[in-house]
Amino acid sequence: MADETLANAADKSERVSPTRLKVLQVAAELFADRGFSGVGVNEIGAATGLGRGALYYHISSKEDLLYDITTAYMSTLIVDGRAIAEVETDPVERVYALSRALMMTISEHLSEMTVCFRELHALTAERRRAVTGLHSDYQAIWSAALADGVTKRVFKPTSSVVLKGLLGMYFYSFLWLTPRGPQNAADIGNSFAEVVLNSVRK
Amino acid sequence: MADETLANAADKSERVSPTRLKVLQVAAELFADRGFSGVGVNEIGAATGLGRGALYYHISSKEDLLYDITTAYMSTLIVDGRAIAEVETDPVERVYALSRALMMTISEHLSEMTVCFRELHALTAERRRAVTGLHSDYQAIWSAALADGVTKRVFKPTSSVVLKGLLGMYFYSFLWLTPRGPQNAADIGNSFAEVVLNSVRK
Repeated sequence: MADETLANAADKSERVSPTRLKVLQVAAELFADRGFSGVGVNEIGAATGLGRGALYYHISSKEDLLYDITTAYMSTLIVDGRAIAEVETDPVERVYALSRALMMTISEHLSEMTVCFRELHALTAERRRAVTGLHSDYQAIWSAALADGVTKRVFKPTSSVVLKGLLGMYFYSFLWLTPRGPQNAADIGNSFAEVVLNSVRK
Repeated sequence: MADETLANAADKSERVSPTRLKVLQVAAELFADRGFSGVGVNEIGAATGLGRGALYYHISSKEDLLYDITTAYMSTLIVDGRAIAEVETDPVERVYALSRALMMTISEHLSEMTVCFRELHALTAERRRAVTGLHSDYQAIWSAALADGVTKRVFKPTSSVVLKGLLGMYFYSFLWLTPRGPQNAADIGNSFAEVVLNSVRK
């Protein structure tokens, strides 16, 4: 990965401004509904209520918007995950907190994930690598949480293939999840945390 | 769902002929590589070695081909899953067998799954419902396997959201799986079976 892309990917891990998040969400809904190629910038400007001029303050091009849609929710996950790792020192509680945060972010970004899965091949190879890099950064947060549990003699070691499987349990949910408020997503997060804990507990 | 679609979906649960499977695989690889709209029927005829005429003996249109790609591997899963349910009466062994079969089918159909995730919205609403119906039929095989374990007092009851999560662990793997032969997929299947069993065992 080029140094510049690495720096950009690192930037993406900072929390995104509310207006920018709103632009990404509205654009993702339009792209999820009618495809990336079927939606124009004017339309996104109208749907956000910003108009074309103010919209260009927040985005640089439609292609950049696609990239930002595929990275913003991953950045949210990484920022939240690192914050949880700092405050939750108990391995079991950390898994519950990571699990709830993950399900809540997924349930709030169903359109973004639909666009990400459908249009990722439309990104340049360099940008696809950056997205993959963010996924690895997020997986590392879970990996560290499970390793901490091993150090504290609460968990047994977990293979990387099982960790990928467990994270897939969460990410695949965008296909069947019906968002009915964050409480519901938090409940599912607690249920999935139990699946993880049943697998990793000594 | 219209009766005709139901009948078609039921047909899909029969095992597909080897030539037809080969056509679906080659077309899926082309679609996965360059997108559904970027590949012509002539090209599929050439890549399969059948030529356009013989190809039309196996498919009726490019749109039908897309539908068949998204349903053939699900049909394989359903046929294999029902066969396993008939021969494996031990609940734990049945989970292991279903798990290995699922991972092996996924590892053999990575292009098909890529196309399915990317182009499913290009199908008619009726056909999308048929695909969803096949997914429900497959989930019912796992649901029955877990219920049988409950009846035999080996498993505790599993909620439908946890079952969806556990199946997502498998289906999401098409994104990270590198096929290195069926043995490897079978090993992953055994590891994932343990995740399932750790969750459902009494």
